[in-house]
Amino acid sequence: MPARPIVIVGTGGSGRETLQIIRAIERQSPNTWALTGMVGRDVSHPERLTRLNVTYLGDPETLAARMPEVVGWSFVVGIADNRARRDLTLRLVEQGLEPATLIHPSVIIGDDVEIGAGTTVGPNGVITTNVRIGEGVQVNIACVISHDTTIGDYAFLGDSVTLAGDVTIEAGASLYSGTRVIPERRIGRDAVVGAGAVVTHDVPPGVTVMGVPARPVH
Amino acid sequence: MPARPIVIVGTGGSGRETLQIIRAIERQSPNTWALTGMVGRDVSHPERLTRLNVTYLGDPETLAARMPEVVGWSFVVGIADNRARRDLTLRLVEQGLEPATLIHPSVIIGDDVEIGAGTTVGPNGVITTNVRIGEGVQVNIACVISHDTTIGDYAFLGDSVTLAGDVTIEAGASLYSGTRVIPERRIGRDAVVGAGAVVTHDVPPGVTVMGVPARPVH
Amino acid sequence: MPARPIVIVGTGGSGRETLQIIRAIERQSPNTWALTGMVGRDVSHPERLTRLNVTYLGDPETLAARMPEVVGWSFVVGIADNRARRDLTLRLVEQGLEPATLIHPSVIIGDDVEIGAGTTVGPNGVITTNVRIGEGVQVNIACVISHDTTIGDYAFLGDSVTLAGDVTIEAGASLYSGTRVIPERRIGRDAVVGAGAVVTHDVPPGVTVMGVPARPVH
Repeated sequence: MPARPIVIVGTGGSGRETLQIIRAIERQSPNTWALTGMVGRDVSHPERLTRLNVTYLGDPETLAARMPEVVGWSFVVGIADNRARRDLTLRLVEQGLEPATLIHPSVIIGDDVEIGAGTTVGPNGVITTNVRIGEGVQVNIACVISHDTTIGDYAFLGDSVTLAGDVTIEAGASLYSGTRVIPERRIGRDAVVGAGAVVTHDVPPGVTVMGVPARPVH
Repeated sequence: MPARPIVIVGTGGSGRETLQIIRAIERQSPNTWALTGMVGRDVSHPERLTRLNVTYLGDPETLAARMPEVVGWSFVVGIADNRARRDLTLRLVEQGLEPATLIHPSVIIGDDVEIGAGTTVGPNGVITTNVRIGEGVQVNIACVISHDTTIGDYAFLGDSVTLAGDVTIEAGASLYSGTRVIPERRIGRDAVVGAGAVVTHDVPPGVTVMGVPARPVH
Repeated sequence: MPARPIVIVGTGGSGRETLQIIRAIERQSPNTWALTGMVGRDVSHPERLTRLNVTYLGDPETLAARMPEVVGWSFVVGIADNRARRDLTLRLVEQGLEPATLIHPSVIIGDDVEIGAGTTVGPNGVITTNVRIGEGVQVNIACVISHDTTIGDYAFLGDSVTLAGDVTIEAGASLYSGTRVIPERRIGRDAVVGAGAVVTHDVPPGVTVMGVPARPVH
């Protein structure tokens, strides 16, 4: 089967880390992806792309301009902001592109795990069993997602997040780096958990919490 | 050598994560274990076992009922509660079963490390050097156990626990997910460390601590 | 190419963990290093070296006494204290030894990463892209170093440290185990971050911070 063309949307840190996932997949399973290049608005550091030897294709609108060539291409949105990731994903799907699910080859995934379209999982993650991860989720580096956990669409897990089992993360929630959630807790839709927080109580939708234990920020 | 028959005791999250360890060992070293099935009292979610394509053998008492067939079988207790894990282990040993030591193939273990019978170590752990881990200990996912550390029998380490060196964990102590212990500290017998705590002082036997830095909870 | 002779400076926990890195490299890439032995002042536990089957060569001064034999040998300083590591490194370089850069084979390193001479990176680390790490840095176990991060010479990262992107660690700073730094923060020269702290503000040079969020300690 020929390699599928893919484009990365986002040229910031998140997009360039997504590139590392694709290249690790390429080393493990050659000819899976044919990377066309990266699109994005952030061109403040063009040398960072140059040093990665990757083609910059312009801003996301350029994909629409290249229709119908891009129809059937795969894409992945390497942008940490959940709303921007979702909006771009929906727009590109409308244009006929297909969201890719990208999992770094080092990730350890158990049985009975489902991961949605457009979701990325960074290096050294562990996902055990009876886990459902929705669409367009960004799971960053070294996250631990234990048994019986559900993560809704377009959520965000920063680096080194640990969900200790029976956890529910609703759509659009953001858990920043190093947060821990004890078992059987629920993080509501579009809630935000600050870096390093330890979640011991449910977090209502839209609420921001921080600290150990995590408390709402007013 | 033929694969040894093994049974998992515990059908909750911990038991099903133990199943993932056995299956990972199977992929790495085929014919090490012949999994007979799982026993446990928790049958509230039978579909979770069905989806794992694993045989449910009934509650732990069924093993006694199947004597002498089970004599010489190996077993592992996938139950997070230290006392329950110990009690079941001792009873099954009396019945002639043998506790298995199960280490996920991804774990990195250095020289001069001893790990006791019935102990499990989950994926992505690191254990460096001059470390002694007792019997029936549960070391969950992505734990870091540094040099010159001792862990007593039937202790529990949750996911992403880091012991930074010269640490002593006495028998029966529980360190919940994401806790860190600085060097040269001692966690007393049956003590409990709450999720995400940072232990900077010794914790006396039986005491519960939480927070950053960890303080006793009254 | 023949294996290069190398000596480990430091016989405490850090030195013995460095030995584990060398042995892991040996298993992955035989004949890279020919370990001559370990030098160090700490001989309080000689049995720990005996059990590792490693030769104890005496204190660091013995290397000078063995001139010119040692000229051209490689060395690595396995000592956590930044100043001691730097002073020993500079002295041994004067004597004609060459600092080795040692990266555990399990470490995942992306494109556009530079790591200086004499730096060690422990097992299960992840370093993504556009990262510069200076000379003589000690990066311990399971650290996550995200995009666009710079770490100065003779800095120290304990176990399970997470730098979430665009972080600057200046020379000689020490981040103890389990600390997290949110994006775009700067840890000043010789600053100290206590174990488990979450850094949300810049830390000035020489200042010690602790807690969640990290605050200066007076």
